[in-house]
Amino acid sequence: MRIAFQGELGAYSHEAILHGFGDDCEVVPCNAFREVFRQAVGGATDAGLVPIENALTGSIHEVYDLLLTHDLPIVAEVTRPIRHELLGMPGAALGTIEVVHSHPQALWQCEAFLEDVGAELMADYDTAGAARWVADQGDPTHAAIAGPLAAELYELAPLARDISTQSHNATRFVLVGDPSSSAEKNAPYKTSLVVELAHEPGALYDALLPFSEHGVNLTKLESRPMGEAPWQYRFYLDLEGHVATPSVQAALDELGRRVASYRVLGTYPSIRGGDGA
Amino acid sequence: MRIAFQGELGAYSHEAILHGFGDDCEVVPCNAFREVFRQAVGGATDAGLVPIENALTGSIHEVYDLLLTHDLPIVAEVTRPIRHELLGMPGAALGTIEVVHSHPQALWQCEAFLEDVGAELMADYDTAGAARWVADQGDPTHAAIAGPLAAELYELAPLARDISTQSHNATRFVLVGDPSSSAEKNAPYKTSLVVELAHEPGALYDALLPFSEHGVNLTKLESRPMGEAPWQYRFYLDLEGHVATPSVQAALDELGRRVASYRVLGTYPSIRGGDGA
Repeated sequence: MRIAFQGELGAYSHEAILHGFGDDCEVVPCNAFREVFRQAVGGATDAGLVPIENALTGSIHEVYDLLLTHDLPIVAEVTRPIRHELLGMPGAALGTIEVVHSHPQALWQCEAFLEDVGAELMADYDTAGAARWVADQGDPTHAAIAGPLAAELYELAPLARDISTQSHNATRFVLVGDPSSSAEKNAPYKTSLVVELAHEPGALYDALLPFSEHGVNLTKLESRPMGEAPWQYRFYLDLEGHVATPSVQAALDELGRRVASYRVLGTYPSIRGGDGA
Repeated sequence: MRIAFQGELGAYSHEAILHGFGDDCEVVPCNAFREVFRQAVGGATDAGLVPIENALTGSIHEVYDLLLTHDLPIVAEVTRPIRHELLGMPGAALGTIEVVHSHPQALWQCEAFLEDVGAELMADYDTAGAARWVADQGDPTHAAIAGPLAAELYELAPLARDISTQSHNATRFVLVGDPSSSAEKNAPYKTSLVVELAHEPGALYDALLPFSEHGVNLTKLESRPMGEAPWQYRFYLDLEGHVATPSVQAALDELGRRVASYRVLGTYPSIRGGDGA
């Protein structure tokens, strides 16, 4: 299976593809999330993998917007722990690192560790791209923050592991494309919706009643920020179960009578990381 | 009034302070959100201003975490439009720009414009810091993406205005500190809560009933991502009204009987931007 992802080889998305869909996947690196969708829509790849939510930074609204503007369902999700490492040239030592390169969010996530190191910090677009840059330069005073797959691909040495300030960092990725491209069929299913409420007080409460009545568990509920007025809501909503499960079907039938509109972004198996995600 | 903020002089936070609390505020730039809280807690400043939500990128979870770990209430909010400009040396022309510097999120928000410009893109920690760098270097082939206040402070020329791909970019900032530090008392009030639900299906539905019954409008509801299990929710919730308004008080009394716990992050006047925010 050919799967597009955003970032350079060795990115956390690349690692999530190998974990979720097997080492024999052919991966296609892209510059932007938009390009990942373009590849999958155009048939240049079978599917695309994109992060949709991070435990520390929240929902990735750009990806939700792309899901709404493309006819490309979510066909699987993979949740993976994000364990940053400080990667340097083989033979380099932590004490001699003068400059650390990475994506600003990764630099921020490792802030306490970096304060101790006391190095200069260089912002980059991509964790794996920063690792590749360090490897290309070959300067033992430079290091990158990236994941273990980047270390392996660019033959860098981990000078320190698990350097995030907060230990529970994880990212939830979704595979978009043809439903037949999802390898795992036995994992528990989830369904993702975007819901637009009627513009009246109590509309949200009314919209949630069907899920409560039919015993359908919600795993996410989030108002899209900065609505123009109260109760003019768009919600991201995830629930447990397949869209064809009778209780889910009954709840969605009832939901349709209570809200302005809703759209199913996908119904898909949920693959958890095996090592602590 | 002395107000701490994160970023360099000319940052969007600096602009929000001047807009919300007057040109006579003394501003204290800080390197990190954590440092803003530290300044305000320690009394080095009267208050701190931090962004809590952006229209395109959503809630800033780090700020919520700081609100939960500091005894520093929200005493005002200011919502401001974010209108990026491309800033160059006076006399520079758009056609001769070879390198554009800014924060990666600003670069991403201006992606379509930058594709047309075709310049090399350099990631920086801070939009205003990128503008200062361009001014310091004085090279007419370099430009920064930042706001109008940075242009003014660093005497740069706007080579292009309103260059965001999406036009509805805005950031909601909150002032934290002593309640007497909020200047505006006549604006409509809002109240922010963090709510922890009991671990059972229907708990969210039950928690929202008091607001529906007492006619209290919610302006935000967001599950904190990556809960360990369904219905183990922490929610960010904003509502219209002062915490001492009878309907809000009644709803909160009832809420307290229905959820595991809740905490009021602040009850505060809401200041909207005057020019299209």
